[in-house]
Amino acid sequence: MPPTITDNQSHDFKAHYDCAHRSSLQDDETDDAYVKKITRYSDGTVKLRNSNIELMDQDILYHLALGSESHDLQEMFGDVKFVCMGGTPKRMENFAHFIMNEIGYKLPAGTQLQDISAYSYRYSMYKVGPVLCVSHGMGTPSVSILMHEMIKLMYHAKCKDPVFIRIGTCGGVGVEGGTVIITEDALDGQLRNSHEFTILGETIHRPAKLDKKLARELKALATADDPYDTIIGKTLCTNDFYEGQGRLDGAFCEFSENDKMAYLEKLRDNGVVNIEMESTIFAALTHHAGIKAAVVCVALLNRLNGDQVNAPKEVMHEWQQRPQILVARYIRKVLSHNGQLKSLFGHQGSIKSPRRFKLVQQESQAHE
Amino acid sequence: MPPTITDNQSHDFKAHYDCAHRSSLQDDETDDAYVKKITRYSDGTVKLRNSNIELMDQDILYHLALGSESHDLQEMFGDVKFVCMGGTPKRMENFAHFIMNEIGYKLPAGTQLQDISAYSYRYSMYKVGPVLCVSHGMGTPSVSILMHEMIKLMYHAKCKDPVFIRIGTCGGVGVEGGTVIITEDALDGQLRNSHEFTILGETIHRPAKLDKKLARELKALATADDPYDTIIGKTLCTNDFYEGQGRLDGAFCEFSENDKMAYLEKLRDNGVVNIEMESTIFAALTHHAGIKAAVVCVALLNRLNGDQVNAPKEVMHEWQQRPQILVARYIRKVLSHNGQLKSLFGHQGSIKSPRRFKLVQQESQAHE
Repeated sequence: MPPTITDNQSHDFKAHYDCAHRSSLQDDETDDAYVKKITRYSDGTVKLRNSNIELMDQDILYHLALGSESHDLQEMFGDVKFVCMGGTPKRMENFAHFIMNEIGYKLPAGTQLQDISAYSYRYSMYKVGPVLCVSHGMGTPSVSILMHEMIKLMYHAKCKDPVFIRIGTCGGVGVEGGTVIITEDALDGQLRNSHEFTILGETIHRPAKLDKKLARELKALATADDPYDTIIGKTLCTNDFYEGQGRLDGAFCEFSENDKMAYLEKLRDNGVVNIEMESTIFAALTHHAGIKAAVVCVALLNRLNGDQVNAPKEVMHEWQQRPQILVARYIRKVLSHNGQLKSLFGHQGSIKSPRRFKLVQQESQAHE
Repeated sequence: MPPTITDNQSHDFKAHYDCAHRSSLQDDETDDAYVKKITRYSDGTVKLRNSNIELMDQDILYHLALGSESHDLQEMFGDVKFVCMGGTPKRMENFAHFIMNEIGYKLPAGTQLQDISAYSYRYSMYKVGPVLCVSHGMGTPSVSILMHEMIKLMYHAKCKDPVFIRIGTCGGVGVEGGTVIITEDALDGQLRNSHEFTILGETIHRPAKLDKKLARELKALATADDPYDTIIGKTLCTNDFYEGQGRLDGAFCEFSENDKMAYLEKLRDNGVVNIEMESTIFAALTHHAGIKAAVVCVALLNRLNGDQVNAPKEVMHEWQQRPQILVARYIRKVLSHNGQLKSLFGHQGSIKSPRRFKLVQQESQAHE
């Protein structure tokens, strides 16, 4: 593992303490306890590893179109327990409606979900009770910006022990399209289990560690009835979709098919089962913030068989629901365990009879 | 300059030839002539540095929701001369309407602009005659995916000598908010004038070179009447908005204000006038494809004075129009020079009298 602390942190007492303390740690458990201590207040609410924020007049979360003084963030988000993220606004809007149904959450009559971050024109955010559904765009820099602002949002809102889950799509390595993959370790392009940061011109690495217990809990929620496999494995995170993932079909290609296959097989030999573009930064920043996190993706193809994604739209659509189904089972389980699941088998919102509802709609349209 | 060619290219004859040929080149001009030779057909249409594409049954540009066999790409895009890119769908939609007016382009009666890539849920694309307006998201990986597909689109559409321009926002370094900055050289986090790629596990660098003549042409279009400065300078490209740009207001901050200021001053001493998150990949991939390209950004603040962007919304909105105005002048100039500018002072589409138009609208609404 490359060093995780920069030299210029020595100017800062707290960072200096972190450095001295961390280097003496021998095992993960002690490390976890230490991270918890510096990232949580005694009541479990999120504490920031940046003392500047509490000294600021206001903290604007630009890319979310929210601010600590313009919005009552605790009132708006204090009940959030799960932050689910995925690439596109559309997928996260779909997930918001799906999870609303799954946890029996009801909107007040005459209301609908609203994109909370619509005016940022960057990310989309939907809130369904304790579940926040946010789009993160493509690639680690886009995720990085979002993570900084989401972690600060958790702090301002005084959220207690939130869990972050990325719901994504990926290419499989020796794994068929439609397989659900829970990330065990996120690896960078050099197969390091860390994310590289350039801070004030210096290169540092932070461990890209995800919560192994959470990964096992998620895996345990796959059932024998699921008509697809759910596996745990290592995930390669790249900075490009074409050359960066060894595809032959980019605007440029300066390697042969044999080179590509040798590379993919090397990945497989190293335990890599899938490739995507966000996992290392997601893992590194949640770990640094002491936030329990998981990455659950569905493979859209097996890269050992080709580069282009050819599955029909309907099939792809069904595949993309699979990680959502698994994550919904987890959220239901936790809420149920905490006695917070309002209704497992409730009817849909204010509709008593879907048949009569449809008839009323048709009647109404005819009387325009 | 770090090496630009990987070892494993030696498996490929063409790449091998590239490598041997490039290493013997002594100056930029010869280099440019060579790049032009391998990236253009004799009629000026775009040639790909990837022989795999022409052998494929179809080439799906997933992230644009277009395909070489599903769409007649030459019919749709063959007339494109300018590809303008910016971060958000909203900014590029605004730019599309702005440039339509600026070049006097008229839509047929009863039509409106449509987001061509709406079904990708990734990027947005609007076409206004010879100008394509595309959003690229945030960060180099997001731009990388778009660039591969846009370059392939130029190839499939048989576009002749297209010019790519990124229209962005940035932080100024010793430069006040509202200043328009044309990038001379794009630098990475280590101040190298290149972009680092990881391809098949190997790290390579490609020069992040922009067209110096185009930069000067753009600069010459700033007028003494503009109530703001337009300058040329070096641009730092980072992988994060917070720690990566030396901000004190991220979720984490492990350096002091003094460290930050020393870093920003070091940047200034190296000729850096602004910081953003896309320029190196944009420069590296356009240069590799032999495409003339420029980056024009407006500074939203002077980072030597702070981290948070505090200008009022209306001011920010006006600032963001400034790079668009400069780019519009350039496009008008080129079209005018080629005799392709339909109408410089034409009326707006099908509206003869805005006053009477408004009255008709009101009448119509009253008779609902």
